[in-house]
Amino acid sequence: MSLIEDLKWRHAVKAYIPTKKVSKEVIDSIVEAARLAPTSSGLQPFKLLVVENQDLKNRLAEGSLNPDSMRDCSHVLVFAAWDRYSAERIDTVYDFTTEERGLPKGRFNDYTDFIKGVYLNETADENFAHTARQTYIALGLAIAQAAELRVDSTPAEGFDNKLVDEVLNLKELGLKSVLLMYVGYKDTDRDWLSSAKKVRVPKEDFVVEFN
Amino acid sequence: MSLIEDLKWRHAVKAYIPTKKVSKEVIDSIVEAARLAPTSSGLQPFKLLVVENQDLKNRLAEGSLNPDSMRDCSHVLVFAAWDRYSAERIDTVYDFTTEERGLPKGRFNDYTDFIKGVYLNETADENFAHTARQTYIALGLAIAQAAELRVDSTPAEGFDNKLVDEVLNLKELGLKSVLLMYVGYKDTDRDWLSSAKKVRVPKEDFVVEFN
Repeated sequence: MSLIEDLKWRHAVKAYIPTKKVSKEVIDSIVEAARLAPTSSGLQPFKLLVVENQDLKNRLAEGSLNPDSMRDCSHVLVFAAWDRYSAERIDTVYDFTTEERGLPKGRFNDYTDFIKGVYLNETADENFAHTARQTYIALGLAIAQAAELRVDSTPAEGFDNKLVDEVLNLKELGLKSVLLMYVGYKDTDRDWLSSAKKVRVPKEDFVVEFN
Repeated sequence: MSLIEDLKWRHAVKAYIPTKKVSKEVIDSIVEAARLAPTSSGLQPFKLLVVENQDLKNRLAEGSLNPDSMRDCSHVLVFAAWDRYSAERIDTVYDFTTEERGLPKGRFNDYTDFIKGVYLNETADENFAHTARQTYIALGLAIAQAAELRVDSTPAEGFDNKLVDEVLNLKELGLKSVLLMYVGYKDTDRDWLSSAKKVRVPKEDFVVEFN
Protein backbone atom coordinates (compact mmCIF):
# COMPACT_ATOMS: atom_id res chain seq x y z
CA MET A 1 0.00 0.00 0.00
CA SER A 2 1.01 3.59 -0.39
CA LEU A 3 0.48 6.76 1.59
CA ILE A 4 -1.94 8.08 -1.03
CA GLU A 5 -4.06 4.93 -0.87
CA ASP A 6 -3.98 5.13 2.93
CA LEU A 7 -5.16 8.75 2.83
CA LYS A 8 -7.97 7.85 0.42
CA TRP A 9 -9.02 5.01 2.72
CA ARG A 10 -9.30 7.08 5.90
CA HIS A 11 -11.93 9.57 6.97
CA ALA A 12 -12.73 11.44 10.16
CA VAL A 13 -14.79 8.74 11.88
CA LYS A 14 -17.92 10.00 13.62
CA ALA A 15 -18.82 6.94 15.77
CA TYR A 16 -16.76 4.20 17.40
CA ILE A 17 -17.48 0.72 18.76
CA PRO A 18 -16.89 1.22 22.49
CA THR A 19 -15.92 -2.39 23.18
CA LYS A 20 -13.26 -2.70 20.46
CA LYS A 21 -9.83 -1.81 21.75
CA VAL A 22 -6.76 -0.87 19.75
CA SER A 23 -3.65 -2.92 20.55
CA LYS A 24 -0.63 -1.48 22.33
CA GLU A 25 1.48 -2.24 19.23
CA VAL A 26 -0.74 -0.05 17.05
CA ILE A 27 -0.72 2.81 19.56
CA ASP A 28 3.07 2.53 19.84
CA SER A 29 3.50 2.82 16.08
CA ILE A 30 1.18 5.84 15.89
CA VAL A 31 3.21 7.47 18.66
CA GLU A 32 6.39 6.60 16.77
CA ALA A 33 5.19 8.33 13.58
CA ALA A 34 4.41 11.47 15.64
CA ARG A 35 7.80 11.26 17.34
CA LEU A 36 9.57 11.10 13.98
CA ALA A 37 7.74 14.16 12.63
CA PRO A 38 9.93 17.02 11.45
CA THR A 39 9.61 20.20 13.53
CA SER A 40 11.01 23.71 13.38
CA SER A 41 14.72 23.62 14.26
CA GLY A 42 14.18 20.03 15.37
CA LEU A 43 12.92 21.25 18.74
CA GLN A 44 9.90 18.91 18.93
CA PRO A 45 8.13 21.41 21.19
CA PHE A 46 5.30 19.14 22.29
CA LYS A 47 4.35 15.90 24.01
CA LEU A 48 1.77 13.26 23.28
CA LEU A 49 -0.60 12.27 26.06
CA VAL A 50 -2.15 8.86 25.47
CA VAL A 51 -5.41 8.42 27.36
CA GLU A 52 -6.92 4.95 27.57
CA ASN A 53 -8.51 5.31 31.02
CA GLN A 54 -12.31 5.40 30.62
CA ASP A 55 -12.98 7.77 33.52
CA LEU A 56 -10.49 10.25 32.12
CA LYS A 57 -11.97 9.97 28.61
CA ASN A 58 -15.42 10.67 30.08
CA ARG A 59 -14.14 13.76 31.84
CA LEU A 60 -12.27 15.04 28.77
CA ALA A 61 -15.42 14.55 26.70
CA GLU A 62 -17.28 17.28 28.57
CA GLY A 63 -17.37 20.34 26.37
CA SER A 64 -16.31 18.38 23.30
CA LEU A 65 -18.12 18.76 19.97
CA ASN A 66 -18.14 14.96 19.66
CA PRO A 67 -18.42 13.68 23.23
CA ASP A 68 -19.68 10.24 22.17
CA SER A 69 -16.65 9.67 19.93
CA MET A 70 -14.29 10.73 22.69
CA ARG A 71 -15.95 8.36 25.17
CA ASP A 72 -16.39 5.42 22.78
CA CYS A 73 -13.03 5.42 21.03
CA SER A 74 -10.26 3.17 22.30
CA HIS A 75 -7.60 5.82 22.96
CA VAL A 76 -7.56 9.61 22.96
CA LEU A 77 -4.23 11.13 21.95
CA VAL A 78 -3.69 14.68 23.17
CA PHE A 79 -1.11 16.76 21.30
CA ALA A 80 0.11 19.34 23.81
CA ALA A 81 2.64 22.02 22.91
CA TRP A 82 5.19 23.84 25.03
CA ASP A 83 3.56 26.88 26.62
CA ARG A 84 6.67 28.86 25.67
CA TYR A 85 10.27 28.47 24.55
CA SER A 86 13.07 28.81 27.08
CA ALA A 87 16.86 28.72 26.94
CA GLU A 88 16.76 25.57 29.06
CA ARG A 89 14.36 23.77 26.75
CA ILE A 90 16.37 24.69 23.67
CA ASP A 91 19.67 23.71 25.30
CA THR A 92 18.26 20.38 26.47
CA VAL A 93 17.37 19.45 22.88
CA TYR A 94 20.70 20.53 21.41
CA ASP A 95 22.80 19.04 24.24
CA PHE A 96 21.08 15.73 23.61
CA THR A 97 21.62 16.03 19.85
CA THR A 98 25.35 16.74 20.15
CA GLU A 99 25.70 13.87 22.63
CA GLU A 100 23.87 11.43 20.34
CA ARG A 101 26.01 12.48 17.39
CA GLY A 102 29.27 12.38 19.34
CA LEU A 103 29.87 16.09 18.71
CA PRO A 104 31.39 18.55 21.17
CA LYS A 105 28.81 20.17 23.44
CA GLY A 106 28.08 23.64 22.13
CA ARG A 107 28.65 22.66 18.50
CA PHE A 108 25.38 24.39 17.56
CA ASN A 109 25.79 27.43 19.84
CA ASP A 110 25.67 29.90 16.95
CA TYR A 111 22.37 28.46 15.85
CA THR A 112 20.83 28.13 19.30
CA ASP A 113 21.89 31.71 20.07
CA PHE A 114 20.08 32.77 16.92
CA ILE A 115 16.82 30.98 17.73
CA LYS A 116 16.96 32.09 21.37
CA GLY A 117 17.32 35.65 20.07
CA VAL A 118 14.08 35.19 18.16
CA TYR A 119 11.92 33.21 20.57
CA LEU A 120 12.98 34.64 23.92
CA ASN A 121 12.12 38.12 22.68
CA GLU A 122 8.57 37.06 21.89
CA THR A 123 5.63 36.82 24.28
CA ALA A 124 4.50 33.42 25.60
CA ASP A 125 1.46 33.68 23.31
CA GLU A 126 3.67 34.24 20.27
CA ASN A 127 5.84 31.29 21.29
CA PHE A 128 2.79 29.09 21.74
CA ALA A 129 1.38 30.10 18.34
CA HIS A 130 4.57 28.61 16.91
CA THR A 131 4.85 25.49 19.07
CA ALA A 132 1.17 24.70 18.46
CA ARG A 133 1.68 24.77 14.68
CA GLN A 134 4.30 22.04 14.96
CA THR A 135 1.81 19.62 16.49
CA TYR A 136 -0.21 19.66 13.26
CA ILE A 137 2.69 18.06 11.37
CA ALA A 138 2.79 15.24 13.92
CA LEU A 139 -0.99 14.89 13.82
CA GLY A 140 -0.93 14.43 10.04
CA LEU A 141 1.67 11.69 10.30
CA ALA A 142 -0.12 10.00 13.21
CA ILE A 143 -3.36 9.94 11.18
CA ALA A 144 -1.46 8.49 8.21
CA GLN A 145 0.14 5.82 10.39
CA ALA A 146 -3.24 4.75 11.81
CA ALA A 147 -4.57 4.58 8.24
CA GLU A 148 -1.61 2.45 7.11
CA LEU A 149 -2.59 -0.04 9.81
CA ARG A 150 -6.28 0.27 8.83
CA VAL A 151 -7.18 1.59 12.24
CA ASP A 152 -9.77 4.37 12.41
CA SER A 153 -9.17 7.81 13.80
CA THR A 154 -10.57 11.31 14.07
CA PRO A 155 -8.58 14.54 14.33
CA ALA A 156 -10.33 17.03 16.62
CA GLU A 157 -9.89 20.69 17.49
CA GLY A 158 -13.37 21.08 18.99
CA PHE A 159 -12.87 20.47 22.68
CA ASP A 160 -12.54 22.38 25.93
CA ASN A 161 -8.82 23.17 26.05
CA LYS A 162 -8.92 24.53 29.59
CA LEU A 163 -10.66 21.43 30.87
CA VAL A 164 -8.21 19.10 29.11
CA ASP A 165 -5.24 21.08 30.43
CA GLU A 166 -6.66 20.89 33.95
CA VAL A 167 -7.64 17.22 33.93
CA LEU A 168 -4.25 16.14 32.60
CA ASN A 169 -2.25 18.63 34.71
CA LEU A 170 -0.64 20.04 31.60
CA LYS A 171 0.29 23.35 33.22
CA GLU A 172 2.70 21.53 35.55
CA LEU A 173 4.36 20.04 32.47
CA GLY A 174 4.63 23.47 30.81
CA LEU A 175 2.20 22.35 28.12
CA LYS A 176 -1.10 23.44 26.60
CA SER A 177 -3.43 21.16 24.66
CA VAL A 178 -3.76 21.86 20.93
CA LEU A 179 -5.26 18.87 19.18
CA LEU A 180 -6.91 15.58 19.90
CA MET A 181 -6.90 12.39 17.90
CA TYR A 182 -9.40 9.65 18.65
CA VAL A 183 -8.24 6.15 17.77
CA GLY A 184 -10.44 3.08 17.56
CA TYR A 185 -12.69 1.07 15.29
CA LYS A 186 -15.63 2.71 13.59
CA ASP A 187 -19.22 1.73 14.14
CA THR A 188 -20.20 1.68 10.48
CA ASP A 189 -23.94 1.86 11.21
CA ARG A 190 -23.65 5.01 13.30
CA ASP A 191 -20.75 6.62 11.40
CA TRP A 192 -22.61 8.51 8.67
CA LEU A 193 -19.33 9.42 6.95
CA SER A 194 -18.47 5.75 6.36
CA SER A 195 -20.70 5.58 3.31
CA ALA A 196 -20.08 9.14 2.05
CA LYS A 197 -17.87 9.90 -0.91
CA LYS A 198 -14.54 11.49 0.04
CA VAL A 199 -14.55 15.05 -1.25
CA ARG A 200 -11.53 17.27 -1.75
CA VAL A 201 -11.05 20.50 -3.67
CA PRO A 202 -10.24 19.59 -7.30
CA LYS A 203 -6.56 19.65 -8.15
CA GLU A 204 -6.97 22.55 -10.59
CA ASP A 205 -8.38 24.71 -7.77
CA PHE A 206 -5.73 23.57 -5.29
CA VAL A 207 -2.50 24.07 -7.22
CA VAL A 208 -0.97 27.06 -8.96
CA GLU A 209 2.06 26.23 -11.09
CA PHE A 210 4.93 28.53 -11.97
CA ASN A 211 6.88 26.71 -14.65
CA MET B 1 8.11 0.09 2.84
CA SER B 2 6.21 1.71 5.66
CA LEU B 3 5.59 5.28 6.74
CA ILE B 4 7.85 4.83 9.76
CA GLU B 5 10.72 3.57 7.58
CA ASP B 6 10.12 6.50 5.21
CA LEU B 7 10.26 8.97 8.10
CA LYS B 8 13.47 7.41 9.38
CA TRP B 9 14.97 7.65 5.90
CA ARG B 10 14.27 11.34 5.36
CA HIS B 11 15.97 14.38 6.82
CA ALA B 12 15.82 18.12 6.19
CA VAL B 13 18.29 18.29 3.32
CA LYS B 14 20.73 21.22 3.49
CA ALA B 15 22.15 21.16 -0.07
CA TYR B 16 20.73 20.13 -3.43
CA ILE B 17 22.19 19.18 -6.81
CA PRO B 18 21.03 22.08 -9.00
CA THR B 19 21.00 20.10 -12.24
CA LYS B 20 18.92 17.17 -11.01
CA LYS B 21 15.23 17.73 -11.64
CA VAL B 22 12.30 15.98 -10.03
CA SER B 23 9.80 14.46 -12.46
CA LYS B 24 6.30 15.84 -12.95
CA GLU B 25 4.89 12.51 -11.72
CA VAL B 26 6.68 12.84 -8.39
CA ILE B 27 5.55 16.44 -7.93
CA ASP B 28 1.98 15.44 -8.79
CA SER B 29 1.98 12.73 -6.15
CA ILE B 30 3.37 15.09 -3.50
CA VAL B 31 0.64 17.58 -4.38
CA GLU B 32 -1.92 14.77 -4.17
CA ALA B 33 -0.83 13.82 -0.64
CA ALA B 34 -1.21 17.47 0.41
CA ARG B 35 -4.61 17.69 -1.29
CA LEU B 36 -5.85 14.61 0.59
CA ALA B 37 -4.76 15.99 3.97
CA PRO B 38 -7.48 16.27 6.60
CA THR B 39 -8.31 19.85 7.61
CA SER B 40 -10.59 21.51 10.13
CA SER B 41 -14.23 21.09 9.03
CA GLY B 42 -12.86 19.86 5.71
CA LEU B 43 -12.42 23.44 4.53
CA GLN B 44 -8.92 22.96 3.05
CA PRO B 45 -8.20 26.65 3.62
CA PHE B 46 -5.02 26.85 1.57
CA LYS B 47 -3.44 26.41 -1.84
CA LEU B 48 -0.18 24.94 -2.98
CA LEU B 49 2.02 27.04 -5.27
CA VAL B 50 4.51 24.93 -7.19
CA VAL B 51 7.51 26.95 -8.36
CA GLU B 52 9.86 25.39 -10.87
CA ASN B 53 10.85 28.59 -12.67
CA GLN B 54 14.49 29.40 -11.88
CA ASP B 55 14.10 33.19 -11.95
CA LEU B 56 11.24 32.98 -9.51
CA LYS B 57 13.16 30.63 -7.21
CA ASN B 58 16.06 33.07 -7.23
CA ARG B 59 13.78 35.95 -6.26
CA LEU B 60 12.03 33.96 -3.52
CA ALA B 61 15.43 32.97 -2.12
CA GLU B 62 16.21 36.56 -1.11
CA GLY B 63 15.72 36.84 2.62
CA SER B 64 15.64 33.08 3.08
CA LEU B 65 17.67 31.35 5.79
CA ASN B 66 18.78 28.79 3.18
CA PRO B 67 18.96 30.70 -0.09
CA ASP B 68 21.23 28.14 -1.76
CA SER B 69 18.80 25.30 -1.09
CA MET B 70 15.91 27.37 -2.43
CA ARG B 71 17.85 28.20 -5.62
CA ASP B 72 19.37 24.73 -6.15
CA CYS B 73 16.38 22.52 -5.42
CA SER B 74 14.20 21.32 -8.26
CA HIS B 75 10.85 22.71 -7.09
CA VAL B 76 9.79 25.04 -4.30
CA LEU B 77 6.31 24.30 -2.91
CA VAL B 78 4.66 27.24 -1.17
CA PHE B 79 1.88 26.42 1.27
CA ALA B 80 -0.31 29.53 1.36
CA ALA B 81 -3.35 29.81 3.63
CA TRP B 82 -6.57 31.80 3.26
CA ASP B 83 -6.04 35.29 4.66
CA ARG B 84 -9.44 34.95 6.34
CA TYR B 85 -12.61 32.91 6.36
CA SER B 86 -15.70 34.20 4.58
CA ALA B 87 -19.27 33.00 4.14
CA GLU B 88 -18.59 32.67 0.42
CA ARG B 89 -15.50 30.51 0.92
CA ILE B 90 -17.28 28.24 3.39
CA ASP B 91 -20.36 27.93 1.16
CA THR B 92 -18.26 27.14 -1.90
CA VAL B 93 -16.69 24.17 -0.10
CA TYR B 94 -19.97 22.83 1.26
CA ASP B 95 -21.93 23.42 -1.98
CA PHE B 96 -19.30 21.38 -3.79
CA THR B 97 -19.42 18.64 -1.16
CA THR B 98 -23.22 18.27 -1.30
CA GLU B 99 -23.07 18.24 -5.10
CA GLU B 100 -20.36 15.57 -5.16
CA ARG B 101 -22.32 13.43 -2.69
CA GLY B 102 -25.64 13.91 -4.46
CA LEU B 103 -27.15 15.58 -1.39
CA PRO B 104 -29.58 18.48 -1.39
CA LYS B 105 -27.87 21.88 -1.37
CA GLY B 106 -27.97 23.25 2.16
CA ARG B 107 -27.78 19.81 3.76
CA PHE B 108 -25.02 21.08 6.05
CA ASN B 109 -26.54 24.51 6.76
CA ASP B 110 -26.72 23.94 10.51
CA TYR B 111 -23.05 23.13 10.58
CA THR B 112 -21.92 25.91 8.26
CA ASP B 113 -24.02 28.40 10.26
CA PHE B 114 -22.17 27.22 13.35
CA ILE B 115 -18.68 27.61 11.89
CA LYS B 116 -19.59 30.94 10.30
CA GLY B 117 -20.74 32.07 13.75
CA VAL B 118 -17.28 31.25 15.06
CA TYR B 119 -14.99 32.41 12.28
CA LEU B 120 -16.82 35.47 10.99
CA ASN B 121 -16.79 36.94 14.49
CA GLU B 122 -13.01 36.67 14.67
CA THR B 123 -10.45 39.10 13.29
CA ALA B 124 -8.61 38.31 10.06
CA ASP B 125 -5.49 37.61 12.14
CA GLU B 126 -7.36 35.10 14.29
CA ASN B 127 -8.75 33.45 11.15
CA PHE B 128 -5.30 33.25 9.59
CA ALA B 129 -3.81 31.75 12.77
CA HIS B 130 -6.26 28.91 12.23
CA THR B 131 -5.94 28.49 8.45
CA ALA B 132 -2.14 28.60 8.75
CA ARG B 133 -2.16 25.70 11.23
CA GLN B 134 -3.95 23.50 8.70
CA THR B 135 -1.10 23.84 6.20
CA TYR B 136 1.23 22.02 8.62
CA ILE B 137 -0.87 18.85 8.34
CA ALA B 138 -0.50 18.96 4.56
CA LEU B 139 3.22 19.71 4.83
CA GLY B 140 3.74 16.62 6.99
CA LEU B 141 1.99 14.42 4.46
CA ALA B 142 3.80 16.02 1.51
CA ILE B 143 7.15 15.37 3.22
CA ALA B 144 6.12 11.76 3.88
CA GLN B 145 5.06 11.30 0.27
CA ALA B 146 8.39 12.61 -1.04
CA ALA B 147 10.16 10.23 1.36
CA GLU B 148 8.07 7.27 0.16
CA LEU B 149 9.34 8.01 -3.35
CA ARG B 150 12.89 8.48 -2.00
CA VAL B 151 12.97 12.08 -3.16
CA ASP B 152 14.65 14.61 -0.90
CA SER B 153 12.97 17.59 0.65
CA THR B 154 13.29 20.33 3.24
CA PRO B 155 10.48 21.97 5.20
CA ALA B 156 11.17 25.68 5.73
CA GLU B 157 9.64 28.44 7.80
CA GLY B 158 12.65 30.73 7.54
CA PHE B 159 11.88 32.96 4.58
CA ASP B 160 10.62 36.44 3.80
CA ASN B 161 6.85 35.99 3.85
CA LYS B 162 6.13 39.47 2.53
CA LEU B 163 8.47 38.99 -0.40
CA VAL B 164 7.01 35.59 -1.26
CA ASP B 165 3.46 36.95 -1.05
CA GLU B 166 4.43 39.83 -3.32
CA VAL B 167 6.37 37.84 -5.91
CA LEU B 168 3.59 35.24 -6.26
CA ASN B 169 0.75 37.80 -6.07
CA LEU B 170 -0.78 35.92 -3.17
CA LYS B 171 -2.79 38.89 -1.93
CA GLU B 172 -4.87 38.84 -5.09
CA LEU B 173 -5.65 35.20 -4.38
CA GLY B 174 -6.65 36.00 -0.79
CA LEU B 175 -3.70 34.00 0.48
CA LYS B 176 -0.64 34.45 2.71
CA SER B 177 2.44 32.24 2.60
CA VAL B 178 3.03 30.02 5.62
CA LEU B 179 5.50 27.30 4.75
CA LEU B 180 7.90 26.26 2.05
CA MET B 181 9.01 22.82 1.03
CA TYR B 182 12.06 22.37 -1.16
CA VAL B 183 12.02 19.25 -3.32
CA GLY B 184 14.98 17.82 -5.18
CA TYR B 185 17.97 15.53 -4.88
CA LYS B 186 20.53 16.09 -2.16
CA ASP B 187 24.16 16.88 -2.80
CA THR B 188 25.57 14.42 -0.27
CA ASP B 189 28.99 16.09 -0.16
CA ARG B 190 27.58 19.49 0.75
CA ASP B 191 24.63 18.29 2.83
CA TRP B 192 26.21 17.94 6.28
CA LEU B 193 23.06 16.33 7.67
CA SER B 194 23.33 13.41 5.24
CA SER B 195 25.87 11.64 7.41
CA ALA B 196 24.47 12.74 10.79
CA LYS B 197 22.52 10.40 13.03
CA LYS B 198 18.79 11.17 13.17
CA VAL B 199 17.99 12.42 16.65
CA ARG B 200 14.57 12.57 18.24
CA VAL B 201 13.46 13.01 21.82
CA PRO B 202 13.39 9.54 23.45
CA LYS B 203 9.96 7.93 23.59
CA GLU B 204 9.87 8.03 27.40
CA ASP B 205 10.27 11.82 27.32
CA PHE B 206 7.75 12.23 24.50
CA VAL B 207 4.77 10.24 25.73
CA VAL B 208 2.70 10.37 28.91
CA GLU B 209 0.32 7.45 29.32
CA PHE B 210 -2.95 7.43 31.26
CA ASN B 211 -4.00 3.80 31.45
